Amino acid sequence: MLKIVSLCKRRGFIYPGSQIYGGLANTFDFGPLGVELKKNILASWWKTFVQDRADIYGLDGGILMNSTVWKASGHTEKFIDDLRECEKCHKRFKEEHVIKKSSGGEAYCPDCGEKLSGLRRFNPMFKTFVGPVENSSSVTYLRPETAQAIFINFKNIIDTFHPRIPFGIAQVGKAFRNEITLGNFIFRKLEFEQMEIEYFVREKNWKKYFEEWKKKMEKWTINLGIKKSNLHWREHDKKELAHYSEKTEDLEYNFPFGGFKELYGLAYRTDFDLKTHTKESGKDLRYIDPQTQEKFFPHIIEPSFGLERTILAILSDAYYEDKKNKRIVLRFKPSMAPIKVAIFPLLANKPKLIKKAKEVRSLLRDNFVVAWDERGNIGKRYYAQDEAGTPYCVTIDFDSLEKDDVTVRDRDTMKQERVKINELINYLNKKL
Amino acid sequence: MLKIVSLCKRRGFIYPGSQIYGGLANTFDFGPLGVELKKNILASWWKTFVQDRADIYGLDGGILMNSTVWKASGHTEKFIDDLRECEKCHKRFKEEHVIKKSSGGEAYCPDCGEKLSGLRRFNPMFKTFVGPVENSSSVTYLRPETAQAIFINFKNIIDTFHPRIPFGIAQVGKAFRNEITLGNFIFRKLEFEQMEIEYFVREKNWKKYFEEWKKKMEKWTINLGIKKSNLHWREHDKKELAHYSEKTEDLEYNFPFGGFKELYGLAYRTDFDLKTHTKESGKDLRYIDPQTQEKFFPHIIEPSFGLERTILAILSDAYYEDKKNKRIVLRFKPSMAPIKVAIFPLLANKPKLIKKAKEVRSLLRDNFVVAWDERGNIGKRYYAQDEAGTPYCVTIDFDSLEKDDVTVRDRDTMKQERVKINELINYLNKKL
Repeated sequence: MLKIVSLCKRRGFIYPGSQIYGGLANTFDFGPLGVELKKNILASWWKTFVQDRADIYGLDGGILMNSTVWKASGHTEKFIDDLRECEKCHKRFKEEHVIKKSSGGEAYCPDCGEKLSGLRRFNPMFKTFVGPVENSSSVTYLRPETAQAIFINFKNIIDTFHPRIPFGIAQVGKAFRNEITLGNFIFRKLEFEQMEIEYFVREKNWKKYFEEWKKKMEKWTINLGIKKSNLHWREHDKKELAHYSEKTEDLEYNFPFGGFKELYGLAYRTDFDLKTHTKESGKDLRYIDPQTQEKFFPHIIEPSFGLERTILAILSDAYYEDKKNKRIVLRFKPSMAPIKVAIFPLLANKPKLIKKAKEVRSLLRDNFVVAWDERGNIGKRYYAQDEAGTPYCVTIDFDSLEKDDVTVRDRDTMKQERVKINELINYLNKKL
Repeated sequence: MLKIVSLCKRRGFIYPGSQIYGGLANTFDFGPLGVELKKNILASWWKTFVQDRADIYGLDGGILMNSTVWKASGHTEKFIDDLRECEKCHKRFKEEHVIKKSSGGEAYCPDCGEKLSGLRRFNPMFKTFVGPVENSSSVTYLRPETAQAIFINFKNIIDTFHPRIPFGIAQVGKAFRNEITLGNFIFRKLEFEQMEIEYFVREKNWKKYFEEWKKKMEKWTINLGIKKSNLHWREHDKKELAHYSEKTEDLEYNFPFGGFKELYGLAYRTDFDLKTHTKESGKDLRYIDPQTQEKFFPHIIEPSFGLERTILAILSDAYYEDKKNKRIVLRFKPSMAPIKVAIFPLLANKPKLIKKAKEVRSLLRDNFVVAWDERGNIGKRYYAQDEAGTPYCVTIDFDSLEKDDVTVRDRDTMKQERVKINELINYLNKKL
């Protein structure tokens, strides 16, 4: 894990948040390569689950909503962490992080060793104030999940698009939780990006669609390049279930810290949300069947994907120490690689090489995300691009000036081939 | 303007935020078509200003940062709105919104008519608390601009990529301002999305790059389909300048409410930010020239683009009432249209037509964002797609079953052509 964290910083995937100011726990910033990786994941998700389907509608709701949303959803009352507070340093801790000197005995602060309080209720929603006055009536919260924006727009989507049940509404966006955690890199962040679908079905069909979504989620995950052997499903037991769910299964990934942990969740939320919002808002959120005119609350299957955990799983699966060749390689699937092709002019101080290399760059840039490196020897540049997970490197040398060809080097096999410049796009398209 | 707002709701571009709960002022949710329009703009921006350039690096920093960032940036002290408060209803107002009964006289509340206080300082940053305890040491703010995440990662980018000056760092993301405003649809929202570049130059060259960026910003804007005649540049006078800027010009758009207003901004931020962060953090954020080893603070040119205003300008420019044909059309440039092709089986209750139409859908879906509509007569479906700005509609009728062709109808000319299904992708690719 530490090796991955270090590589992420070294190559510009992920930097610790607010680092020059001593950081801010559980925040991270995505560097140039991290942004491209993120974009690749998001694009694949949106294409698969929204654009390629006729039954799923996209949405992008607000992070700030009327606070009644959180009352209705149950988050104000029931979205609670039980914490213990240190009587000396006043820090708070989750039960699993405290020190107990004897079984069932008193708990002690893992930071300063002093006695901790009994369990206290703590709501991990971030509070803020909308409008000019800071008081209870202006309080709202940064959304702790994206789902609610979907429920409160349910009627808008129905009225605009008249979908036939079953159908879904999909959303990608940030959610915020004031997490008390020991921190496992980007596994649990204060702000994180969710990719969620609320899929509306008839109650009698919920089991069928639950199973269907399990398959679809797993298929998409494997398609990112994540090994099936690092995945398994685990069902929540009753105690673990969120207040809105009757059944939840997690797709767990074998993370390089602590083994199998939640990658994604699939929850059966029943008709809890649409019912409570109907009650709280006074607006009828029932669905009307266009053929039979039957009026009912759809039940909800919720496939929920975390973007940061996807990134972490992809990085973990891709990370490979090639001891024979003394290099580290991120063996991304080409579709996930942040940079598809790196372009190297053999020497930085030869204008003719630079000119030719820039021509190659212009040529490739309309088709692929490219990088440019003219620093140091070619071996060093290969080394850097292997760590960035770039599938192909293209070197422009003196022969290129004569023969209009380049050397293409493959990340995984390390083999090099001469390819004519006018065949380069086709060649790379096939490989990628 | 009201017509655009109404169309946006009716066709699923933009819904008022938290509407079932009576709303939350200055928040909006993007519906299925709004999300796609947004994606088109973001993709064009990222391609033009990041992926197609070798000198600009992408970044995606946090919304939550260590609060010292805002102290250093000057936002805690100098990012201030002067407001008047009503002595009766305690609402607060910007100076330009109050009622004055005589020139230079006392100000009165535009809501209840009572006397207002004198001007009071108000900081529009949203406050929140990180960690378990709510007190002054846990306070931070939702970022009011994305730029600061770039400055605090300046050293990370330098250390990873060793860029040669001039170079830029680009970022897309949400920023938050607790705005007191009368509201002009999505012109000013509590949360809004910025597309920003911080471009680092030598002090002596700032004027040159300022002019260069003016041209690049305008070119990109026009390329979205926005008319040049609806754009002009306006320079801020000294009083208007933000605390960090020595020169700012706004690219203004002729909005359908109140005429020319800021669409984008181009600011010369001098070396203010890197200097203050160096001072506050104790980390040296100077740039070292790799050839001369000269150490200096780069000066910054900041082209800043608002996503919501881009959407509003595109919608305003595209909106067209075709009185002759009794229809409303959004005449988007094809690259901006949320849906590129709508697919209509002539009749919903003929399984053979549905089957054929689904084949056409599968065929097109890999190349274009498509929609499906099987409800009502074809004329009504054209009407709806015109309002959605869909450039082409493809109808599958009984002849299609025999002759493997379809009717393609053009949004702008309303002309229809029969096209063979196996030529359809080429046909549409050329048109789009």
